[in-house]
Amino acid sequence: MSGSKSTEASIDHLGIAVRSIEQALGFYRDQLGLAVGPRETVVQEKVNVAMLPLEESRIELLEPTEEDSPVGKFLAKRGEGLHHVALKVPDLEAAVARLKNSGARLLNEPRAGAGGHLYVFVHPNSAGGVLLELIQG
Amino acid sequence: MSGSKSTEASIDHLGIAVRSIEQALGFYRDQLGLAVGPRETVVQEKVNVAMLPLEESRIELLEPTEEDSPVGKFLAKRGEGLHHVALKVPDLEAAVARLKNSGARLLNEPRAGAGGHLYVFVHPNSAGGVLLELIQG
Repeated sequence: MSGSKSTEASIDHLGIAVRSIEQALGFYRDQLGLAVGPRETVVQEKVNVAMLPLEESRIELLEPTEEDSPVGKFLAKRGEGLHHVALKVPDLEAAVARLKNSGARLLNEPRAGAGGHLYVFVHPNSAGGVLLELIQG
Repeated sequence: MSGSKSTEASIDHLGIAVRSIEQALGFYRDQLGLAVGPRETVVQEKVNVAMLPLEESRIELLEPTEEDSPVGKFLAKRGEGLHHVALKVPDLEAAVARLKNSGARLLNEPRAGAGGHLYVFVHPNSAGGVLLELIQG
């Protein structure tokens, strides 16, 4: 990947962990006026998701369906708040290769998520305390 | 503000609190390959800032210049991590009026920040645990 190519990275979405999507929509939809897009339940992650589209990006509200789930554990430890940042990158394979070569800690191998897009997570210890998701753009 | 207009909101930047910008650039610049844009010190906020431009947005690394500062206190309490989310809105005045009318807690009246753009902060208690900055687009 060339140095210039990597500047084409863009924010895909922000994930915000909430105890109740309905309660959070009281702010994001009713007070702030954002539109609400698709809602779904991701069974394997034990989470209900509401997407709030923005120009070129979206906010993703994440509500756990079980306490024993990644988002449930996050809420128990830190309370409601930003859970992860997702960057879209033009060449995920090259980004992953560079991260591995330079010693960054990845939480998974690239795999297909919602919509079939490949993604990986970078551990917060490698990314300034941020759980960083990289998505093939 | 019409309901449709508010869907034009977009993410302006993510603010990430770090103990050392140089150390954080070891990940964001050297491992992830992002370009580094302007760097400055914002004296009144006691913080060094490095901007990492993305398509339509940017990451903002925030390093405190004093422990007794908003970002310094954040680091002492929570460690490194996402500090705030900034949304660009097409009509800040109307957004602020709607938030006030519906009981959301604002941390300041609209005021001019970097580049002369008006901004307000919404308290995390009103925004699902997120320190939310609204910026006139």
